[in-house]
Amino acid sequence: MVADGSRQLSMQKKTYNYSAGPAVLPEEVLKEIQTEIFDYQNTGMSVMEISHRGKVCIALFDETEALLRKLMDVSEHYSVLFMQGGARLQFAAVPLNLFTKNKKADYIHTGSWTKYAIAEADKIGEAVVVASGENDHFRKIPDLSKLKASADADYLYLCTNNTIEGTTIRPEAMPVSVLPIVADMSSNILSEEYDIEQFGLIFAGAQKNMGIAGVTIVIVRNDLLERSSKNNADMINYQLMQSKQSMLNTPPVFAVYVLNKVLKWVEKKGGVRQMAVQNKEKASMLYDFIDNSNLYKNSIDVDSRSLMNVIFNLPTAEEDAQFAKEAEKNGLMFLKGHRDVGGIRASIYNAAPPEQVQALIEFMKKYETGRY
Amino acid sequence: MVADGSRQLSMQKKTYNYSAGPAVLPEEVLKEIQTEIFDYQNTGMSVMEISHRGKVCIALFDETEALLRKLMDVSEHYSVLFMQGGARLQFAAVPLNLFTKNKKADYIHTGSWTKYAIAEADKIGEAVVVASGENDHFRKIPDLSKLKASADADYLYLCTNNTIEGTTIRPEAMPVSVLPIVADMSSNILSEEYDIEQFGLIFAGAQKNMGIAGVTIVIVRNDLLERSSKNNADMINYQLMQSKQSMLNTPPVFAVYVLNKVLKWVEKKGGVRQMAVQNKEKASMLYDFIDNSNLYKNSIDVDSRSLMNVIFNLPTAEEDAQFAKEAEKNGLMFLKGHRDVGGIRASIYNAAPPEQVQALIEFMKKYETGRY
Repeated sequence: MVADGSRQLSMQKKTYNYSAGPAVLPEEVLKEIQTEIFDYQNTGMSVMEISHRGKVCIALFDETEALLRKLMDVSEHYSVLFMQGGARLQFAAVPLNLFTKNKKADYIHTGSWTKYAIAEADKIGEAVVVASGENDHFRKIPDLSKLKASADADYLYLCTNNTIEGTTIRPEAMPVSVLPIVADMSSNILSEEYDIEQFGLIFAGAQKNMGIAGVTIVIVRNDLLERSSKNNADMINYQLMQSKQSMLNTPPVFAVYVLNKVLKWVEKKGGVRQMAVQNKEKASMLYDFIDNSNLYKNSIDVDSRSLMNVIFNLPTAEEDAQFAKEAEKNGLMFLKGHRDVGGIRASIYNAAPPEQVQALIEFMKKYETGRY
Repeated sequence: MVADGSRQLSMQKKTYNYSAGPAVLPEEVLKEIQTEIFDYQNTGMSVMEISHRGKVCIALFDETEALLRKLMDVSEHYSVLFMQGGARLQFAAVPLNLFTKNKKADYIHTGSWTKYAIAEADKIGEAVVVASGENDHFRKIPDLSKLKASADADYLYLCTNNTIEGTTIRPEAMPVSVLPIVADMSSNILSEEYDIEQFGLIFAGAQKNMGIAGVTIVIVRNDLLERSSKNNADMINYQLMQSKQSMLNTPPVFAVYVLNKVLKWVEKKGGVRQMAVQNKEKASMLYDFIDNSNLYKNSIDVDSRSLMNVIFNLPTAEEDAQFAKEAEKNGLMFLKGHRDVGGIRASIYNAAPPEQVQALIEFMKKYETGRY
């Protein structure tokens, strides 16, 4: 390929990437990164080389925060932090920062990711499971309309999209609570419009809808910052991170730079509202095809279905494996389901264009009729 | 600039970057990243988009580990981990993992970075300062030849290079101890040959000598892994990270990719031995010029002088500021000393070519004679 070639031009065979994350980036974002790689904003340096204490880098962080605030309608009552360690470190950081003397919080259990979050909270206090999809094999988000807060609970925790189980808590299904709601939004942030004022804290790893692995967004209501304990490691202290504008140590500059570009791309495409329209169209197209097929089956409760991760099965595990293998031969990559649940998973985040969904449906049709 | 232009070709005016980190990357590393950005190893995907569970990414991590082991001569008695959160998170992770029931360790205090490390250890146990440069204003590494281990100490901690103070514990000045030695090698890893077998654990953020911010290398002697407590957050549990081959969660793939390229560059340039030869030449050139100058002064004990971060002063703080400002106008960037100590700091890591040091000396000469 040539250095300035686009994705289309550069490949003999077009490849589609259905990975659950790291995932597809918008083509024009990659193009801009490529163009700027030796000289970021006339500094004569790569963005990978600039000092985080210099004004160019500080401006990058400020602009990125402003973009995120605008796209998600985040008011000044909230702080935006850029952290490291992924959602997985937040599973621990949330209880370490938000537990008060009670060391107790309510958790809505919807799959693998909440399981890990619950385990981290249980290490230092008590995670009370107030609703669980476990009896439904996590194929349905439990009814959240009548939740009651446990006595002395410090917050209510949930995951808005479950990448492994292929379910989501849609904006209209969000619970109402007297407790601050903490949400792991790693896999559907910027995909639909949630009302930020409903939340006490939102966190999300960037590598699905916002860029590359290495930076985690934390949006936290300012009054909750006071709960942070000085006894915790500095790097997971929200209050300290906020007071240092996310530059307590050398931040992951390049990951923030990619985030900045992706946010600009989302804005250009019409913002989160337009993303949601397109995501619903893309997901409907695929779910409709599956529901009308004799070979493929999705067992998720219709109202709980994820717009981001569409999971489905063929009649047997062997056939699932065969399907994923043949798909890969045809340039449809990373369709194998998560090892915990098997089956097939097509992740179709914001950056996956409609033609990527269409390409999958075409392949599924051909596969079903034996003509692939 | 053109997308495939090199640094030289792309700029009207050549810029030199003396930042303490993030810092200069080898030109050919940036070139390769640019060329491969749309298609990593014929996957038809960017390295920023590939799944960390796929064989291409696993091969990247395996190769990177093998390269690091070869360059640093790391035996199979040690594990190599790729973590997040920078050295700063390791300041907490080290005591959280290596403290035994005693919760006590010896610390050699040589400046700002050890101060922060000591503070983290003191949150959960006791850091005993067994040697300190504080009375010498950290301009000299204390004598480490007669250290005695404290009773019940779990390890001996030190920092091999102090970026802010411009000092280093050279390989020949390393202490001998009955305790496992833990070293923060963030700012001089791969710059000189240390005997790995002397250490129990080495950690280093990548953004100085190894690539970009976002990945932290941990090299840990296998017997120490057993000390990791399950009560700690999963993301800072060395034993768990080791058992998951650093892929407990989505790792910072792009940062590891850049690390891989930098390690290959070091290998091609003759390995750490050759880096050390060049680093000594570069640093000598600059220290010799300073020592023979009437305007510039370096107050660091000669045997403690860093090869990576050369700090110096003009007669007054005002003149320091003026010098840094004029240097910047002439394309010599980020020479301002750390805000804690002021003065001027020239960071000349592995990737800074000798001509970068020469360019600084030339400017210093012209500045001194008023002809800049």
